[in-house]
Amino acid sequence: MPTEKIPDIIISRLPIYLRALQRLTEKGIQTTSSQELGERVGISAAQIRKDLSQFGEFGKQGTGYYIPFLMDKIRSILKVDRIWDVAIVGMGDVGHAVARYTGFTNRGFQVTLLFDADPAKVGQRVGDLEIKSMDVMVSEIRRHDVKIAMLAVPAAAAQEVANSLVEAGVKAILNYAPISLSVPPDVRVQYIDPAIGLQRMTYYID
Amino acid sequence: MPTEKIPDIIISRLPIYLRALQRLTEKGIQTTSSQELGERVGISAAQIRKDLSQFGEFGKQGTGYYIPFLMDKIRSILKVDRIWDVAIVGMGDVGHAVARYTGFTNRGFQVTLLFDADPAKVGQRVGDLEIKSMDVMVSEIRRHDVKIAMLAVPAAAAQEVANSLVEAGVKAILNYAPISLSVPPDVRVQYIDPAIGLQRMTYYID
Repeated sequence: MPTEKIPDIIISRLPIYLRALQRLTEKGIQTTSSQELGERVGISAAQIRKDLSQFGEFGKQGTGYYIPFLMDKIRSILKVDRIWDVAIVGMGDVGHAVARYTGFTNRGFQVTLLFDADPAKVGQRVGDLEIKSMDVMVSEIRRHDVKIAMLAVPAAAAQEVANSLVEAGVKAILNYAPISLSVPPDVRVQYIDPAIGLQRMTYYID
Repeated sequence: MPTEKIPDIIISRLPIYLRALQRLTEKGIQTTSSQELGERVGISAAQIRKDLSQFGEFGKQGTGYYIPFLMDKIRSILKVDRIWDVAIVGMGDVGHAVARYTGFTNRGFQVTLLFDADPAKVGQRVGDLEIKSMDVMVSEIRRHDVKIAMLAVPAAAAQEVANSLVEAGVKAILNYAPISLSVPPDVRVQYIDPAIGLQRMTYYID
């Protein structure tokens, strides 16, 4: 598969499709159309057909897409047909909430490492995991070959911690801090930014 | 301005442009180009020019965009040239984190109401605000004419609380619960879903 050529913008839409398909299967639905999927995710049917056609022939004219097959294909493309270990750095409110988040199930991720700089928090347990010291963060992440981290430290500390994560070999950072991170080109950053979500809705309020 | 005709997908990109422009101004930069902006947000320069041209002539050939002017225009389009009151429902880890979030500053929002179902939490203060009972949620939201809510209750309670928010007149819900909400067509929902953020990055990990 010539994966190198898939534009970023298409990759960014595939998780949206996958979530919508997951919800359809939870309702016992096994087939869908680009029209139905489009209405659910707010993307045109034509765009969806174009996006999915990048990866081969998933649907048949007239019969639509067989959802379990399409989900398998998207999971494989996104590499979430496996379980990735994830480290959480910063065990304040956000870190705790993410550590307990139940929405990762069947979506390719499990939280396996927790870190905090506060000696009072180190050694505490959250579920099955023990919070470890930032002093061992780089070595622990390296030892467990963890490639994904969720960054939930205060904004003032975020860049420095991100530098350490990069040093430890992390390639994907989900950043909850309200600042922009500088990372090398081979490291990806996604931002959890509630203000963006809100700004996408105010336009529609009369 | 014929705002009715702007496609959803363009509206969804404007907050991303706005955040990138904000970061440029924080560095003291006053002008930018569709190329520079595109590199920062991962969207093609052609797409950015096309998106922004929907709203008139913002930039000049050769000189680029004057950032303060462009930011004013986007804020006006998105209706974040004012301050919207926001209610948080569910004061667990997520609710507390969002109530203390510092990333709303200058972006059009202020948290003004907090609610929780737990009698032990009602009456507690978070910053300047007191957590109120769910029993008064509908009446308080109506009284203060709040149109935006962040929903941070457990998944099992989320739909029922969403129904009450709609009853109270809320038109925009930022949903942290890992479930899909059913709302009337005049109510918008955006999802904060860390799994989507992670799935957008795994494709790129070798």
